[in-house]
Amino acid sequence: MATGDDQKLVGLPPNRIEALADGVFAVAMTVLVLEIHVPQLPEGAAPEALSKALLALGPKIASYAVGFILLGTLWVGHHYQFAYIRRTDRGLLWINLFFLLAVAFLPFCVGLLGSYGTLALPCILYGCVLLFAGACLLGQWIYATSDHRLVSASLDEAIVRALRDRVAVGMVGYGAALATAFVSPIASLVLYAGMPLLYLLPGRIDRHVKPRRQP
Amino acid sequence: MATGDDQKLVGLPPNRIEALADGVFAVAMTVLVLEIHVPQLPEGAAPEALSKALLALGPKIASYAVGFILLGTLWVGHHYQFAYIRRTDRGLLWINLFFLLAVAFLPFCVGLLGSYGTLALPCILYGCVLLFAGACLLGQWIYATSDHRLVSASLDEAIVRALRDRVAVGMVGYGAALATAFVSPIASLVLYAGMPLLYLLPGRIDRHVKPRRQP
Amino acid sequence: MATGDDQKLVGLPPNRIEALADGVFAVAMTVLVLEIHVPQLPEGAAPEALSKALLALGPKIASYAVGFILLGTLWVGHHYQFAYIRRTDRGLLWINLFFLLAVAFLPFCVGLLGSYGTLALPCILYGCVLLFAGACLLGQWIYATSDHRLVSASLDEAIVRALRDRVAVGMVGYGAALATAFVSPIASLVLYAGMPLLYLLPGRIDRHVKPRRQP
Amino acid sequence: MATGDDQKLVGLPPNRIEALADGVFAVAMTVLVLEIHVPQLPEGAAPEALSKALLALGPKIASYAVGFILLGTLWVGHHYQFAYIRRTDRGLLWINLFFLLAVAFLPFCVGLLGSYGTLALPCILYGCVLLFAGACLLGQWIYATSDHRLVSASLDEAIVRALRDRVAVGMVGYGAALATAFVSPIASLVLYAGMPLLYLLPGRIDRHVKPRRQP
Repeated sequence: MATGDDQKLVGLPPNRIEALADGVFAVAMTVLVLEIHVPQLPEGAAPEALSKALLALGPKIASYAVGFILLGTLWVGHHYQFAYIRRTDRGLLWINLFFLLAVAFLPFCVGLLGSYGTLALPCILYGCVLLFAGACLLGQWIYATSDHRLVSASLDEAIVRALRDRVAVGMVGYGAALATAFVSPIASLVLYAGMPLLYLLPGRIDRHVKPRRQP
Repeated sequence: MATGDDQKLVGLPPNRIEALADGVFAVAMTVLVLEIHVPQLPEGAAPEALSKALLALGPKIASYAVGFILLGTLWVGHHYQFAYIRRTDRGLLWINLFFLLAVAFLPFCVGLLGSYGTLALPCILYGCVLLFAGACLLGQWIYATSDHRLVSASLDEAIVRALRDRVAVGMVGYGAALATAFVSPIASLVLYAGMPLLYLLPGRIDRHVKPRRQP
Repeated sequence: MATGDDQKLVGLPPNRIEALADGVFAVAMTVLVLEIHVPQLPEGAAPEALSKALLALGPKIASYAVGFILLGTLWVGHHYQFAYIRRTDRGLLWINLFFLLAVAFLPFCVGLLGSYGTLALPCILYGCVLLFAGACLLGQWIYATSDHRLVSASLDEAIVRALRDRVAVGMVGYGAALATAFVSPIASLVLYAGMPLLYLLPGRIDRHVKPRRQP
Repeated sequence: MATGDDQKLVGLPPNRIEALADGVFAVAMTVLVLEIHVPQLPEGAAPEALSKALLALGPKIASYAVGFILLGTLWVGHHYQFAYIRRTDRGLLWINLFFLLAVAFLPFCVGLLGSYGTLALPCILYGCVLLFAGACLLGQWIYATSDHRLVSASLDEAIVRALRDRVAVGMVGYGAALATAFVSPIASLVLYAGMPLLYLLPGRIDRHVKPRRQP
């Protein structure tokens, strides 16, 4: 990464921003668990009271799972990009920091959706934060690859396009869900719920990241 | 990890998913500490009042210790598998994310067990989450090793079996405890408590991971 | 990092303190999110009630964003220094720990500013903590570079000065804002708000950390 | 770390347990900040009310700083040992996990001391947890170095002794403070407060970890 004479760094190594991102994702993923408290029942309460109390926690537990998987899709996207990003600079660090700002705010948006998903406002806020996060991810990839600024000069254009399109498609989907929220929040919710499933499936990029049998 | 021409990655390097897992485990392990608050006594209270207040915190402190050790057994299992996993792909990342989803939820289940361990429902929930985590760990190992997809082609079959069996035995034990919960929650609790001790002991796999004297 | 015979370490490797710092920054950055709770409205409340409740969360959300970006500037500064620091010793570890002590305390100061920014006291406290953090960062750089103690012997003096001046300029700015707080807290707030923007811009040091096209 | 044929690992690499430890320390260090809440004053309250409310937070802020520095001494001790530990095994992982169990519990003990430091019980609890943590650290070092199990075979005996004695001296100090608690909690507090300062000073081990000028 550094030239022999150490006088000039050829960009900063990406390991620090990866470590910060992994830390923010790890905390954000577990933040919603802190909202799930063990129910406090009066002593000698019937077992049915506990069943009822746990059922009442259902929306919070669902929020937690949905938020975790949503953050998972963003983390996987970040991970794929950094598999190709060889070095960073001030510009990339700040795009990342704004991305992480949105990431850590998403659990709150998911929680809001869990409580008031039938209203338009939470659906709109959720869409805006997701579009902002997507824009950071897309901006980071364009910034890093344009003129091969922070990636290897030999990086295949097909990979550049595959990763760019994967984020762009997600933004179109989330944008459509956001627009739908003004008409029907329920339809918007269904669209939002379906998007992460899309990212669980392998895409064009996975053909380039194919583990090969090794001796 | 990458071929010389950088055009194709031979799978993603495993360091990012290891870092995310270590972060989620670290947060999950310390989450239960946040439930233990310094008692607020009226000024001039007798020292006996503090002893009593600390004793009342006993179940929360025990929950914390039990949850920490339980997470420790899962973390050690994850660590042993990744000592052999050489690269990752989308499939492995998502198996891991579902594993971490269960991991971060376990402290809540332990807390529930600490408060209502004599009822069947918490014992059943605890068993289900543990079986889900175990299934992810087992599935990850089978996915990574089947046809040597993500491990070295020269990896000994004895190691593959030893790590697979270690998870499978745990699942049988936790499954038995879960089944027992329908008959006697107390007996189920005893079984659950005994399982982590099993993982403190060295097993067949440790013969393969033997530190040798080095010059 | 270690000599061949392993008898003497030539300083400790910097990766552990970097990892601890990344962890503390990640937690501190997300701590303020925990203060933002999903509003609890009575069932059947009008949508307007939710808009109002979310608006009331505005200051906390702004605090979160401001705190995140502020911590970002400090993290970037720390990152730039460690791009050149080759090894650590007890002195550097403790300067870092005191730096992190201030870092983790900053979200509280930002929150205080968000609630009582028109009073002098929060502006003064904020300035003091920032000056302390800046002094640690400056002290760390001077400690590491004086007589090339912990950096490469061939490290360019221009880089040493550029990184030193960048921190020093920040301290002068924050010191001025602190002094202003005694006269006009509002003017002080404006100065504080402007400083992080300064760190978003590239500086002299970035000419030395220029990613070059690579084959 | 691995032999060429990958059939046998010569112990597990230490990077995972280091990462987990750094994560637990980072969370534990920032946990006490979560106890410091921005005071909620009625609108239009006099500035003096804020000064008073902040002064009332003094003990919590002091607890935070003391806990952070205490954890710092333990982290530095852990870091020094792992600078020499080359590989790990199940035994070392579990000694570490029990060490981290105590580490994450220490902020609670410090908080208790801050609120009820004039009573014997908090001083006794604090001493017990510290002795337990010290015993883990000492046990880890003896386990790793005895017969050079997990360190380089050429590791100097003087280093083994220097690191062992540094932990042992701390345990004697904390043990003395614990014993004093039964007679005079105030004297015990003074002893506890002085101990971390001891670890800020360089010791015999630092002669072995001396950064040398490098070309």
